[in-house]
Amino acid sequence: MASRFDPDCPLARALDLIGERWSILILRDLFLDGPRRYQDFADGFAGISPNTLSLRLKTLETAGLIERRFYSQHPPRAEYLLTKKGRELGPALNALRSWGMKHTKK
Amino acid sequence: MASRFDPDCPLARALDLIGERWSILILRDLFLDGPRRYQDFADGFAGISPNTLSLRLKTLETAGLIERRFYSQHPPRAEYLLTKKGRELGPALNALRSWGMKHTKK
Repeated sequence: MASRFDPDCPLARALDLIGERWSILILRDLFLDGPRRYQDFADGFAGISPNTLSLRLKTLETAGLIERRFYSQHPPRAEYLLTKKGRELGPALNALRSWGMKHTKK
Repeated sequence: MASRFDPDCPLARALDLIGERWSILILRDLFLDGPRRYQDFADGFAGISPNTLSLRLKTLETAGLIERRFYSQHPPRAEYLLTKKGRELGPALNALRSWGMKHTKK
């Protein structure tokens, strides 16, 4: 996908990372609720397939926006949380949310 | 697409309108360059098909983010510009651009 966009544009590059809608909703939930497990996302997103959810989480992790932390070794249990890079998206998501509150309806 | 997302979430609703990458790049160019004609977008976006560009412009117009203004009647010539609703996306796009400048590379 990246080749379709202008690599010199920082907005385009940001969208390469977070432009998928599920991705930005994953980030939103991590902002609102703190660390979450795979199953929390699966339960919260009606209509997402397990494959798609896994792929979105992996992409965000590879991009350095989220990380996985094991909170139990026996049995192994992990949760996802925002990295510093991910947390710094907060102002952009807040601005978009404010706009949505003002200009869109249920 | 909208039915896949949470209608109670203003961020999800905002993404329903601007979540397509070409859409947000159309808005970006209108912010940066002011009113633009169809051909300006076609020349600026490598790899977009005429059908896709027309569809994105129509969707943004229907959503009230951009409008068409005729600057010549004979022959008819139109340009696109941001509405007030569209201009109010400025802070969100600026925040996303700042993040991209800091956290992404060419």
